[in-house]
Amino acid sequence: MAKDLVSRQENYSQWYNDLVIKAGLAESSAVRGCMVIKPYGYAIWEKMVAELDRMFKETGHENAYFPLFIPKSFFSREAEHVEGFAKECAVVTHYRLKNDENGKGLVVDETARLEEELIVRPTSETIIWNTYKGWIQSYRDLPILINQWANVVRWEMRTRLFLRTTEFLWQEGHTAHATREEALEETLRMLDVYAHFAENYMAVPVIKGVKTESEKFAGAVDTYTIETLMQDGKALQGGTSHFLGQNFARAFDVKYLNKEQKLDFVWATSWGVTTRLIGALIMAHSDDNGLILPPRLAPIHVVIIPIHKNEEELARINEKAESIKKLLTARGLSVKYDNRDTHKPGWKFAEYELKGVPVRLAIGPRDLLNDSVELVRRDTLEKKVVPVEGIDIMITGLLEEIQQSMFQKALQFREQNTIPVNTWDEFRDVIASKGGFVSAHWDGTPETEEKIKDETKATIRCIPLNNTLEEGKCIYSGKPSRQRVLFAIAY
Amino acid sequence: MAKDLVSRQENYSQWYNDLVIKAGLAESSAVRGCMVIKPYGYAIWEKMVAELDRMFKETGHENAYFPLFIPKSFFSREAEHVEGFAKECAVVTHYRLKNDENGKGLVVDETARLEEELIVRPTSETIIWNTYKGWIQSYRDLPILINQWANVVRWEMRTRLFLRTTEFLWQEGHTAHATREEALEETLRMLDVYAHFAENYMAVPVIKGVKTESEKFAGAVDTYTIETLMQDGKALQGGTSHFLGQNFARAFDVKYLNKEQKLDFVWATSWGVTTRLIGALIMAHSDDNGLILPPRLAPIHVVIIPIHKNEEELARINEKAESIKKLLTARGLSVKYDNRDTHKPGWKFAEYELKGVPVRLAIGPRDLLNDSVELVRRDTLEKKVVPVEGIDIMITGLLEEIQQSMFQKALQFREQNTIPVNTWDEFRDVIASKGGFVSAHWDGTPETEEKIKDETKATIRCIPLNNTLEEGKCIYSGKPSRQRVLFAIAY
Repeated sequence: MAKDLVSRQENYSQWYNDLVIKAGLAESSAVRGCMVIKPYGYAIWEKMVAELDRMFKETGHENAYFPLFIPKSFFSREAEHVEGFAKECAVVTHYRLKNDENGKGLVVDETARLEEELIVRPTSETIIWNTYKGWIQSYRDLPILINQWANVVRWEMRTRLFLRTTEFLWQEGHTAHATREEALEETLRMLDVYAHFAENYMAVPVIKGVKTESEKFAGAVDTYTIETLMQDGKALQGGTSHFLGQNFARAFDVKYLNKEQKLDFVWATSWGVTTRLIGALIMAHSDDNGLILPPRLAPIHVVIIPIHKNEEELARINEKAESIKKLLTARGLSVKYDNRDTHKPGWKFAEYELKGVPVRLAIGPRDLLNDSVELVRRDTLEKKVVPVEGIDIMITGLLEEIQQSMFQKALQFREQNTIPVNTWDEFRDVIASKGGFVSAHWDGTPETEEKIKDETKATIRCIPLNNTLEEGKCIYSGKPSRQRVLFAIAY
Repeated sequence: MAKDLVSRQENYSQWYNDLVIKAGLAESSAVRGCMVIKPYGYAIWEKMVAELDRMFKETGHENAYFPLFIPKSFFSREAEHVEGFAKECAVVTHYRLKNDENGKGLVVDETARLEEELIVRPTSETIIWNTYKGWIQSYRDLPILINQWANVVRWEMRTRLFLRTTEFLWQEGHTAHATREEALEETLRMLDVYAHFAENYMAVPVIKGVKTESEKFAGAVDTYTIETLMQDGKALQGGTSHFLGQNFARAFDVKYLNKEQKLDFVWATSWGVTTRLIGALIMAHSDDNGLILPPRLAPIHVVIIPIHKNEEELARINEKAESIKKLLTARGLSVKYDNRDTHKPGWKFAEYELKGVPVRLAIGPRDLLNDSVELVRRDTLEKKVVPVEGIDIMITGLLEEIQQSMFQKALQFREQNTIPVNTWDEFRDVIASKGGFVSAHWDGTPETEEKIKDETKATIRCIPLNNTLEEGKCIYSGKPSRQRVLFAIAY
């Protein structure tokens, strides 16, 4: 196995961590819980950002930027929001350091204490709705359709690279509407954008659903979610879209004059995805050899590696490789030709498998004779010799095939690991032994939800949007239920 | 004048502030010194980011992301750096809030005090060099060519939208090299990238130069700068590129094994530009009617406005406008057709002048008859009637002409306002009455530099890179000098 990755079977958690580090995606920093996103990991994020940003703009949104800091008092305005967000956070209390008089180095200058503490934003509803108040007078000022790309901080006690870090990167959409219907429509529109992105770019199938009261965003009326399943049978929340009702408009007193010249509170949504998606991307597809990246998000589509005995051979291979690279680049593909003499071909093969480059080409002396190359696709590790003639068209098609095939494989996995159960014993057994999504009846009370969580660690991931109503009995309490919900142990 | 802008003549400072707000670029936030960058302002920043990011990648750089927070002790490692940056900064001391027991709302939880305070990054040399230590062992690991797009915080006492804010957006390049020569070459390469961007995209001419000891970056061996001149005769530093020598490598003990198998400290550069450039863009070109944006950075290239008496006319104009929009969009131009019925044409004319859209087209009934449109270019306000036939080619050429013409105008202004002076009286007189760049002999001492600053507020903006050596006498001390340096009052 490349660079000694532990197998997923042996230790999934360590496999993930080692992979993130060895593939050069990210590493821990000197600051507790904060990561350094390395160039290869950041290149994946840039690809994600480019696609999402395009989709946001196509759906009428504009980007803007709001302050990193939020006055402490803003959090107290929305009762649920403060419970959910203002507790574990980075608090700025001072604005100056000074040299200690006793030579102990830099110390906080106690004379430079802020009158009101500032919180490093864990999410921006409060500062944004405080701003929107100045922008909205009448229905003519609506809708406001704004997105922000930013860093946020939540003081997490247990962190994991990409999946849960104190600081992370994300986008947060914040929209304001004249009617409930319009805001609800927006909430679902953005959920669809996320689902489309996850399935068609990340090649990760999703279940769209709504969160229960206990799992929803603090301050939302309803939280919609896309839920994904990882290879170890754990669920991962991929993105959320919140219907905020008039909660933040009330908290920040944002009213508008409607067409009937009456004042009403403005309706709101917010929605976000984060660098956590990189964690989902890794865990959904990769294998014991390393990353497997879907072509639409891979920083490098094709790597070309020369196999040669001497300089003269290398010179001829260089020429051939450069001509192939030119053909592929002209089709919009990102190609790397690695003819470094510091590493052997075998090492390079393992390296690019680890990095998940979708297609690898190797060119040796015999290929020069036959005008062919050896091609290996990363997802299946299938190897074949192909003619150089028409290789650009062939690889363009192959990348599309890989993209589809990765999605189908992940979909099949999810289907095989979505189990309907009807009894508590069965529920506990499936959750403990196999994991996956468990589809079961629930009586709709937070008490039962809590008890199930306490006993099994499984939470309700969502009530699927496409649910069929079906009479049944709660697996835990035996009380009547009208539909199944989706349970899982989650990241 | 549109929306009652005060004239530049009357009050340049207020003109600038009103323009930023009325054109919808940015506004102050509820957090002292932090701004909200509104969608139109952010769209300009996105254009800047796209061009700069492309140039960075073309010169071999990759993006990455490092933590927002820096442990306090990191700043003490580099003696000059700590003096320059660690003093006025946002200090995170706690990681939790709690509900006050006496019902006073949210208060800092004193039990959640950090062992070591964290500083919100004012610049990232320290955290990045602490990270590079783990990445660099031998010359084979070099160079490292990394850029970061990020927010930074410097606790400014007096702030102005875009020009000086507590939080701002920027990019910071941080590179590591095996030799002094290579690092110096990189420093100057990135200075050239900045100069190219300013002149060819912002249409703002620059003087490339090196800073004096007093004005250089805290921790640099040498700071190179691009200096620009605003319409009020004040200078504005557009971007800086620092040759850091081995200072940060020493501070963080980053050594590498060179080709001769000897350990040496790594050589470094850092370079950055900020959202301040938007301030420079505004002040370099705009007039009493509003913004004048260079086409290469304008979010909207062409606005089309219908002039009609009734619905039937509007329907016919709509059709014509949409066909023109289609033609222009096909050439890669960003076009807005504003046929809102809530505002009159005159209001719209003023609005898009205020917003600096380079080309305005108006279509009335007579234009329909003649298959023509009325065209106004924003930079000169010149008006003419042009045929629709071939309008896409014509406007593409016109935008290029506007871009060049704006640069030439700004260049001419700078040349007219760069004054060589030879006596102290003359110096004081020019600085006080006219401003601009003043080219004068200086004896090379920080003492003289300081005194000149105290007496006139003028600072040495730079020692121009293309300086011709010329014997002379310091205008202040009369001591011998071998070259002129550039003074100005600066933003």
